[in-house]
Amino acid sequence: MITVLKPNTTEDQRNQLIGWFEEQGLTVHVSVGEFQTVLGLVGDTSGVDIDMIRLLDIVADVKRISEPYKKANRKFHPEDSVIDVHGAKCGGGNFAVIAGPCSVESEEQIVEVARRVKAAGATMLRGGAFKPRTSPYAFQGMRAEGLELLAIAKKETGLPIVSEIMNENHLDLFEDVDLIQVGARNMQNFELLKALGHIDKPILLKRGLANTLEELLMSAEYIMAGGNENIILCERGIRTFDHYTRNTLDISAVPGLHEMTHLPVIIDPSHSTGKASFVRPAALAATACGADGLMIEVHNDPKKALCDGAQSLTPDQFDEVMTTVRKVREAVL
Amino acid sequence: MITVLKPNTTEDQRNQLIGWFEEQGLTVHVSVGEFQTVLGLVGDTSGVDIDMIRLLDIVADVKRISEPYKKANRKFHPEDSVIDVHGAKCGGGNFAVIAGPCSVESEEQIVEVARRVKAAGATMLRGGAFKPRTSPYAFQGMRAEGLELLAIAKKETGLPIVSEIMNENHLDLFEDVDLIQVGARNMQNFELLKALGHIDKPILLKRGLANTLEELLMSAEYIMAGGNENIILCERGIRTFDHYTRNTLDISAVPGLHEMTHLPVIIDPSHSTGKASFVRPAALAATACGADGLMIEVHNDPKKALCDGAQSLTPDQFDEVMTTVRKVREAVL
Amino acid sequence: MITVLKPNTTEDQRNQLIGWFEEQGLTVHVSVGEFQTVLGLVGDTSGVDIDMIRLLDIVADVKRISEPYKKANRKFHPEDSVIDVHGAKCGGGNFAVIAGPCSVESEEQIVEVARRVKAAGATMLRGGAFKPRTSPYAFQGMRAEGLELLAIAKKETGLPIVSEIMNENHLDLFEDVDLIQVGARNMQNFELLKALGHIDKPILLKRGLANTLEELLMSAEYIMAGGNENIILCERGIRTFDHYTRNTLDISAVPGLHEMTHLPVIIDPSHSTGKASFVRPAALAATACGADGLMIEVHNDPKKALCDGAQSLTPDQFDEVMTTVRKVREAVL
Amino acid sequence: MITVLKPNTTEDQRNQLIGWFEEQGLTVHVSVGEFQTVLGLVGDTSGVDIDMIRLLDIVADVKRISEPYKKANRKFHPEDSVIDVHGAKCGGGNFAVIAGPCSVESEEQIVEVARRVKAAGATMLRGGAFKPRTSPYAFQGMRAEGLELLAIAKKETGLPIVSEIMNENHLDLFEDVDLIQVGARNMQNFELLKALGHIDKPILLKRGLANTLEELLMSAEYIMAGGNENIILCERGIRTFDHYTRNTLDISAVPGLHEMTHLPVIIDPSHSTGKASFVRPAALAATACGADGLMIEVHNDPKKALCDGAQSLTPDQFDEVMTTVRKVREAVL
Repeated sequence: MITVLKPNTTEDQRNQLIGWFEEQGLTVHVSVGEFQTVLGLVGDTSGVDIDMIRLLDIVADVKRISEPYKKANRKFHPEDSVIDVHGAKCGGGNFAVIAGPCSVESEEQIVEVARRVKAAGATMLRGGAFKPRTSPYAFQGMRAEGLELLAIAKKETGLPIVSEIMNENHLDLFEDVDLIQVGARNMQNFELLKALGHIDKPILLKRGLANTLEELLMSAEYIMAGGNENIILCERGIRTFDHYTRNTLDISAVPGLHEMTHLPVIIDPSHSTGKASFVRPAALAATACGADGLMIEVHNDPKKALCDGAQSLTPDQFDEVMTTVRKVREAVL
Repeated sequence: MITVLKPNTTEDQRNQLIGWFEEQGLTVHVSVGEFQTVLGLVGDTSGVDIDMIRLLDIVADVKRISEPYKKANRKFHPEDSVIDVHGAKCGGGNFAVIAGPCSVESEEQIVEVARRVKAAGATMLRGGAFKPRTSPYAFQGMRAEGLELLAIAKKETGLPIVSEIMNENHLDLFEDVDLIQVGARNMQNFELLKALGHIDKPILLKRGLANTLEELLMSAEYIMAGGNENIILCERGIRTFDHYTRNTLDISAVPGLHEMTHLPVIIDPSHSTGKASFVRPAALAATACGADGLMIEVHNDPKKALCDGAQSLTPDQFDEVMTTVRKVREAVL
Repeated sequence: MITVLKPNTTEDQRNQLIGWFEEQGLTVHVSVGEFQTVLGLVGDTSGVDIDMIRLLDIVADVKRISEPYKKANRKFHPEDSVIDVHGAKCGGGNFAVIAGPCSVESEEQIVEVARRVKAAGATMLRGGAFKPRTSPYAFQGMRAEGLELLAIAKKETGLPIVSEIMNENHLDLFEDVDLIQVGARNMQNFELLKALGHIDKPILLKRGLANTLEELLMSAEYIMAGGNENIILCERGIRTFDHYTRNTLDISAVPGLHEMTHLPVIIDPSHSTGKASFVRPAALAATACGADGLMIEVHNDPKKALCDGAQSLTPDQFDEVMTTVRKVREAVL
Repeated sequence: MITVLKPNTTEDQRNQLIGWFEEQGLTVHVSVGEFQTVLGLVGDTSGVDIDMIRLLDIVADVKRISEPYKKANRKFHPEDSVIDVHGAKCGGGNFAVIAGPCSVESEEQIVEVARRVKAAGATMLRGGAFKPRTSPYAFQGMRAEGLELLAIAKKETGLPIVSEIMNENHLDLFEDVDLIQVGARNMQNFELLKALGHIDKPILLKRGLANTLEELLMSAEYIMAGGNENIILCERGIRTFDHYTRNTLDISAVPGLHEMTHLPVIIDPSHSTGKASFVRPAALAATACGADGLMIEVHNDPKKALCDGAQSLTPDQFDEVMTTVRKVREAVL
């Protein structure tokens, strides 16, 4: 870490800051230039709050040379990680397609959707059982029962299953779930992340509404620090000034994260756009720019889907999207 | 709720949508105009996902006439709520001043700060014990021990104490805490909110980094729906494109929330600006525009505060700010 | 336009508002429902300030049924517009590739780059002569001389040329320019837009840093209202909270604008990401999701490009990108 | 300016970068540390594009030690500037209150409003003659005639007048205008700024919708570089994800700009909130945090104001706000 001091810093102030860094266990190299002083900090700076230091009156700038994430860092793990979700692989050239309904509604529904998306080329089945809803009065999902129905669909189709967890106390219920999703609203629920660091299932970590890529990797680091290094990252749209789509798909997160980390990165074109007619172009864009997979909402009942699924595809639409996704993959390989 | 259909909607599509609304238990009044059709929905629409409906192809617009929050809604509770925190009141003309260090560090520190802020006019003592840190490698707070030291400071000074909870499983440890804080990153940790709905302590609910005022009230509603209606709302800065302050203080949240809800609204000038020299002007602005209180970081050791507290005031600075805050309160009453 | 009144609106207030609408030359249809009143406005509402009306105390909501842009609206012009730039076409299945350096530096440079990008498949040559720079002390471009050098490169290669205008008083200098660019900072320089409405050259209109798609179309409408309907729209990244890329590429603007307008939409992967290594993935994403073209910075001198061109490709890199762009186009057709 | 190189930079790359800096007329001091190399640049760096350098592969960080704005910089001009607008002063303890209608509508209207706001304590009269409207079909203001009516109101009341310019070619028409306003949408219309640098009237420069404070000062610098140093800065709300107010008032811009510049800073509570009921709290907040003035919309005809003025105060409301503003000023002095 480099700290550049302002020109008018007194020796006293400088020594005070150096003393503070040394108390944190760091070695400080001082390089006094003609018109600036730079402190080089050697040691484990990952616990230092860089924002705090930046705001000090005597500090002109502070910059990490080494990123604050270690286990997620591509520098120390140059080759792509491949995450194995009960046989379905993601990363390092393996393309994952997670599809299924927003919410599990019935055995008939989830099994039917599972069959259709598998036939179209999906490699995993998603379905919400515990639903994070803005309103306490809205349907909160089928909860434990929804997970049981997902397990039935898995048995019927062989597809690994993916579902969202909202509370570490529910972990027992997720025994049959192959990939546990942490939703955008819980990306910085650090207590949940810590709990997931101690289990041996892969985690699908979604980016928060207004979180930077570095913050996403720091949340991955929380899980990895506990011992669980099987993480798939997911960009699902960020919140900006423009609301013609539900969120703004930050497509550059794909090359951005690929530079920073060895973990695979998938895109959710359904939540990031919020509109069925935008899912196809967003999925193709994600594939073309090198994403390691897609997560797409598919609903089998267009009538029901009228409201539950303004952003869901029908199985037929999904089929067509998958055909073109495969062509784009070939074009960019 | 009003749903305006697009001019080219077919009767079939309209009936399908009406049928769907009726399945949700709503009564639908259809008013066909010369060039638009409006559906008026009567009944409990609080569970309807308005964003989903807005995105339907046949819908030109949809608008709640009644807001989706009920218990927090000023319409049904026109007079200001007054929240009593172990004798310290907030709301309805009662101004709360919550002050103290970012983190509890030692008994000496917290007792000393408590004495100083009480003398300056603070009505409650804050201190972080469980700290939400972006990095898993950063200091996570003194945890249970920190809460014990806060209880000592409370005994010494009589000030009610405020501290942040991050996990419902920690609730037992918060027995002595008078006002339990939910931090910005957990504003939509719905499982935590539900748990706090079942306790009988007041809650300090901070606005999330990128959450709207309506979303803040929906999170309050989660707590209130469980039976706990003692909530103080806190604006602590939002995330925008500009980074010259740590966050952007959204001062209009004060009149905005006062229109929408009867719950008291306080401002945190420390986190919203991230810089000690901005705390005074932000605190005065908050007071002038009618906030029901302030939450300010105060640290007793300027040397230590060098890094832990780029945004903390010294007790002397806090003293001066409080004097001017009182003058501004008189000016606007 | 539909205006929904709040339930507690008095008859007096309603009549006052109706009177005001009628003064604007609109016919008002009142439909009084059991629990809401809706005013349907017939006539030319394009001049009504919808934001103002939304904020009236008695108004629950207001919504245009017809969009405020007319000439740019796909509803009244369902087929794609094809813009012909001195023989190079854009839109309606014609893919435009505009390439060249950020700034024109010398005859040798611009002619060399023109030859290289033409060989690689570019259909137009770009080069900045008048440069909008944040600092008055920064190089402001070669100005008139730069335009002359572009004209030489055009003569040498036959490529139509594209350059940015910043002042209507410079129009005479742009006689040889085939496509006149309005930069992001001037997207709402309405006086410049009006002036460009009276010329007979196609315009490349870039989206402002924080402008909505509707605002972009309203700016196009300013030009079209003057008689010049030859406009190519360009998404070049928006400003959000995240700064790991220079701007955030809003890839959904492509399907979004294609729904709203018949005008062609191209993507600038260089400015939207600000980083050479992100240009390729962004260009492929844009192509895959249906953009009508690309605008890419290419610089011929890697040594010079060290600083002028952190976001520029070398001609060899551009060559490789174009090869893959062509493959992706075939995959999605 | 400091440039910190990445640890793996080769000597060749370093020398190439140093060479490039030297070509820009800078002297480069190299300080090679154990694990980082820092280049200190001496000379006029105000023309160097820092964003470009930051994105170079070999650069870990780059930081200006001296800000890129010079004439606007408080460092070189520590005492507050006082801008004299035909006798009405702003800055350095002088509080300016600019009030009047959004648009000039008639002689009767503007004279009546001028009388009322003067009686309430306004020090200048505002009125829009040339109106920047999103839609080409909306009323564009009375233009030259509006300026003539303003001049009449000035003669009647003695109040200096303020109006917005949109085109340098209109400068002749602004002869009687005492303070020329540059609107938010033209903040980076550099050609207009340059033209205003050569006149001898004070300029009111409004912050753009999504511009940083540094960008605002760079735009001021454009005017000052031409010789005109009489500038008043105005915060009028920025664009964020939340739309419950028309814009988000960034109140911290007041202390922020006061640190950075000697130029006075005023707040526009009308445009920043877009809602009449929020103007009072926003005006009080601005006053409390040290703004050098206010710019408030006042309209004399509540019936007309129904639509033109959802954000306008009546003269009576303005009168009440001014009374409290004076009390708050006394409280914070």
